[in-house]
Amino acid sequence: MVATNDCDVLIVGAGPAGLMLSTWLSKLKIRTRIVDKAPTKVLVGHADGVQCRTVEVFQSFGFAQRLVDEGAHINEVVSWALDSKGDLQRTGRIPDNEPGTSRFPHAVLSQGRIERFLLDAMKDFNELTVQRSTAPVSMSVDQNLVADFSPNSYPISVTLRRLTEEESVPTQLGAVPNGLHRSNLLADDESDAAKGTKEAGAFDNAGEEETIRTKFLVGCDGARSWVRKQMGLSLEGDAAGAVWGVLDAIVSETSFPDIRLKCTVQSKVGSILIVPRERDYVRFYIQIGSTKPGERFDRSSVTPESIIETAKKIMAPYTLECSDFEWWTVYEVGQRLCKTFSHDERVFIAGDACHTHSPKAGQGMNTSMMDTYNLGWKLAHVLQGKATPDLLKTYSEERYKVAKELIDLDYKLSRMFSAKPKEEGGDGDGVSLAEFKAFFKSLSRWASGTAVHYLPNMLVAPERQPALAPGLPTGMRFESHLVVALADARPWHLGDRLVSDGRWRIILFAGDVREQEQKEKLEQIAAYLDTPDGPIRRYTPPDDDLDSVIEVLTIISNPRISVEPNAFPAILWPARKPYGSRAYDKLYADDSSPVTPNVRGKIYKNLGIDPKTGCIAVVRPDQTVSLVCALDEHKQIGDFFAQFMIAQA
Amino acid sequence: MVATNDCDVLIVGAGPAGLMLSTWLSKLKIRTRIVDKAPTKVLVGHADGVQCRTVEVFQSFGFAQRLVDEGAHINEVVSWALDSKGDLQRTGRIPDNEPGTSRFPHAVLSQGRIERFLLDAMKDFNELTVQRSTAPVSMSVDQNLVADFSPNSYPISVTLRRLTEEESVPTQLGAVPNGLHRSNLLADDESDAAKGTKEAGAFDNAGEEETIRTKFLVGCDGARSWVRKQMGLSLEGDAAGAVWGVLDAIVSETSFPDIRLKCTVQSKVGSILIVPRERDYVRFYIQIGSTKPGERFDRSSVTPESIIETAKKIMAPYTLECSDFEWWTVYEVGQRLCKTFSHDERVFIAGDACHTHSPKAGQGMNTSMMDTYNLGWKLAHVLQGKATPDLLKTYSEERYKVAKELIDLDYKLSRMFSAKPKEEGGDGDGVSLAEFKAFFKSLSRWASGTAVHYLPNMLVAPERQPALAPGLPTGMRFESHLVVALADARPWHLGDRLVSDGRWRIILFAGDVREQEQKEKLEQIAAYLDTPDGPIRRYTPPDDDLDSVIEVLTIISNPRISVEPNAFPAILWPARKPYGSRAYDKLYADDSSPVTPNVRGKIYKNLGIDPKTGCIAVVRPDQTVSLVCALDEHKQIGDFFAQFMIAQA
Repeated sequence: MVATNDCDVLIVGAGPAGLMLSTWLSKLKIRTRIVDKAPTKVLVGHADGVQCRTVEVFQSFGFAQRLVDEGAHINEVVSWALDSKGDLQRTGRIPDNEPGTSRFPHAVLSQGRIERFLLDAMKDFNELTVQRSTAPVSMSVDQNLVADFSPNSYPISVTLRRLTEEESVPTQLGAVPNGLHRSNLLADDESDAAKGTKEAGAFDNAGEEETIRTKFLVGCDGARSWVRKQMGLSLEGDAAGAVWGVLDAIVSETSFPDIRLKCTVQSKVGSILIVPRERDYVRFYIQIGSTKPGERFDRSSVTPESIIETAKKIMAPYTLECSDFEWWTVYEVGQRLCKTFSHDERVFIAGDACHTHSPKAGQGMNTSMMDTYNLGWKLAHVLQGKATPDLLKTYSEERYKVAKELIDLDYKLSRMFSAKPKEEGGDGDGVSLAEFKAFFKSLSRWASGTAVHYLPNMLVAPERQPALAPGLPTGMRFESHLVVALADARPWHLGDRLVSDGRWRIILFAGDVREQEQKEKLEQIAAYLDTPDGPIRRYTPPDDDLDSVIEVLTIISNPRISVEPNAFPAILWPARKPYGSRAYDKLYADDSSPVTPNVRGKIYKNLGIDPKTGCIAVVRPDQTVSLVCALDEHKQIGDFFAQFMIAQA
Repeated sequence: MVATNDCDVLIVGAGPAGLMLSTWLSKLKIRTRIVDKAPTKVLVGHADGVQCRTVEVFQSFGFAQRLVDEGAHINEVVSWALDSKGDLQRTGRIPDNEPGTSRFPHAVLSQGRIERFLLDAMKDFNELTVQRSTAPVSMSVDQNLVADFSPNSYPISVTLRRLTEEESVPTQLGAVPNGLHRSNLLADDESDAAKGTKEAGAFDNAGEEETIRTKFLVGCDGARSWVRKQMGLSLEGDAAGAVWGVLDAIVSETSFPDIRLKCTVQSKVGSILIVPRERDYVRFYIQIGSTKPGERFDRSSVTPESIIETAKKIMAPYTLECSDFEWWTVYEVGQRLCKTFSHDERVFIAGDACHTHSPKAGQGMNTSMMDTYNLGWKLAHVLQGKATPDLLKTYSEERYKVAKELIDLDYKLSRMFSAKPKEEGGDGDGVSLAEFKAFFKSLSRWASGTAVHYLPNMLVAPERQPALAPGLPTGMRFESHLVVALADARPWHLGDRLVSDGRWRIILFAGDVREQEQKEKLEQIAAYLDTPDGPIRRYTPPDDDLDSVIEVLTIISNPRISVEPNAFPAILWPARKPYGSRAYDKLYADDSSPVTPNVRGKIYKNLGIDPKTGCIAVVRPDQTVSLVCALDEHKQIGDFFAQFMIAQA
């Protein structure tokens, strides 16, 4: 049987990259299909690190709290190494993130739970679910339609096939199953897992094919990506040298005092990275061998017990007993990268399909999700007729840069871990303790995800000189601080107003509007924004609320009670449909709330903005700062949007 | 058809009091039935205020965030009155809560949504749901069984009947329906509401009867409580004088600057209380008339439009236009109270069944939920064989005191609102502006719910003199501050460790354990707690984890990194079943986390505890402080528990 169904975006692969994209598109009400070859989501093991920036994005979708509640938190990194007498000693403690990096913690939680949050969100947003045990078998792109963005143009056809149990269920690693046991599954995952079985009929339609017409295709289908192969692209780079074992276990007895902290332990026997995990588990990364180029490592001798035996030797004289092994694997992944992530801006790849590296930096799942968080709103903008297809070019540009930085960093990190420690003052290929510690410190900001910095392009204006808000560089994520709402005195992290709903934000740091000059500047901006040719009315469909495409948020530097909401021009707090209530939630002050008088965000100070004169920031739907200009340079807003936005009739 | 089913607790009435009890009992896995005469939960209108203490309790069940996200927050109270020229002026601003009252806001949200959170939680915890369109028609208590607490003793029989649509659906008020429209229902309420209709078969079994045997019966069935009548009790007190209208509306236009703040407005025409609400709604409380004792107010002339017309007159010269009326009602409730809340500690009443008063102080829903939050764990303790039935006597004692305070306060508040403003310096019955403002200020702590103070009884030890922790008076709720976990450097609000799971907590403020004297004291306490006759092993079933009845949390005053977890006696961080992982989450320091070095809870300082010598606090499952004693007075812990706990074989 061959059926034909149209969709706007077809996503192949429902790991973190695919699910972040489907969640985004579901939120934006885009007609989306997502398929995956496995019969269930990930249930145990795999990735676990969720960096601060990713938690911020989860917050913008409304489910950060689930992660914060369920996950373990990483607050400190401790290094252990041999002293001059050959004894294992604590050699350093550093905060996991530089203080002030983010209002959210660096959390660690099994990939399966992250997938759970995304699956729940995409169902809530628009009833979207994953079609499982399904894989693409052929595709074609009609070159005559590639440049045609009319509503009924579907340039891509993909034939999907329902898989048999043998094709669908992932193969086990070595002699001992690496999905060791599922007895710890939470109730919501258990009911999900039950659906992916033969008994539940998951493979009843095996062999059936369906041909889908789609406007965009996104391959989130892993390192051996089928979609990437169809694009004629491949991963390029080094094969791995070191072979590492990864194990999630319960530590039932240890004399090691830092088992609930992230630790690096380097001894003569080898190196371990320890990551404390949810539900009292601990993850161990342990080097168990090495290979020469072209060689494959014989995994058959590796067992959870053999990994722990190695750990014991490295950690001696500290004792270590483990009573439960939940999951384990062996990896020998090299640093590899695809030269582009897009083909004609119709077919895209994301996540492991574009870049592979070791898991030790805790970046894989994060970078994969941030790839598609970057892509999702751009696809929606084009599909909704808000923007020209040109803006899709920025996806590969922006994310290739990030992937390249990750690959370079992971190369360095892997070498650091695999190298023998160098005696102080000695020479040779080893890594000195000082080098190791300095590297880990430099890693922390990058590893938080908040250092991502896109270069100027049509969506990122070059940095204004001199910078009016040094804390808001263009191309970086908007850094949140507390402000207080003028109308109801409620304290808000401004980031909580930058929800992922596809809208742009113009943030008017209006300065001290008690000053006549500032008041006039604000009125001039308001008048500009209120004209038919201003960016708000120009790009907003005539029947929609005035804040539905571009939302304006105003933050004054003078005290909350020194000005009344009624004093602000109407366009800055427009009426809402259908009842005509005024949008009081657009107006804020850099002030504290009466119930928390000692808690003030100091957003002007923290972002380096002059509290008298202020500035304007334009922020993308993915919270990236696009443009910063002075209040009287407000026409730059219109010039910026004119590059890619489409006027609405 | 008459069926017979046994349960441990039968709850009549599924408003906030009933649902808080069923949520608590569901969490504690008690066999519970809950019935309500209405076919659905509340959908629009009714109560809306959720005080800080109630939010803390929601947090202890895990759903505070839903309220914080959905609700409006009250941060400031503004008073408006006529100046000497007769012009309406802002006469004062005060924080809604004294700064530092709670880490949670005072939130306002429709009662229907609060019911939603409780219904969802009780389903999650133990699959408990409400049986609707059902009311009790008869009951009997077998006096021979009242004192028999053996497992198969069910002293109470109640016959329930399924109601017809006419009996079940609430009658409307006056000529205009007061459940004005439901078009704003959220999706989860909409699907729930659909089940309560004739079309969905909600009344198909009307007339069917079922007789239930139960160990305890709790009437949460409102001011006209059927259960209370069976107990031969009644509400006693004043009938009302003033008649008030309540209206939830969208304000589409106003020149009044404080429409999103809680305001009192007093003019010659009358008084208004304004409460900003979720989804841009505003609640108005407006006096629309008065009655003499015995009189009934004629409600037929009152409409939403007439209420708003009165509001306009009071608020003149400010303009006010409303475009949407979601719900309204008229009330003339007096302050009335039942003399006891319990009959033989087998039949209880809670909420409006015990006490009625005006809604203006925003206390009704809160006090009702706190009634059953007080009762729930006590019922469970008796049913689970942990404690003697004697402790149930404390329910009526403790909650009568709170209800009496509420009644007295509401009496005063109602008189304040209804009285004419008194000219400054004038005499007569009026209330001066200064009196009005002073009263509102004194109200704020009480209204937050954090001032509730139970008198000494078997569950609340008399205050030790001199007090070792002036910030932790016995009989009041445990005040939360930030601490940092020793093992993983994670910052925790200590309140987040006091979850509602039925456990007692012993909180050891161990002082500076680098000092030999403190270290020895801690070891002596640990030795005491670890003996077979100590309170932990004595009251914990032999096969259960050692923290399953009484959890010990230790908080040191010395810096986190000045001591290792391994240095603490094992009983303070016992091993967990089944895998033997150590409970690292019992050990904390009064210190900051490395990622937030400037955020320190200063729990010793804020609670007034000596950082060198510390103290011990015993905290009930409802977070009430039971006992505070010195570290070397630790035998008081055992004496305290011996009053009511039952040794486990």
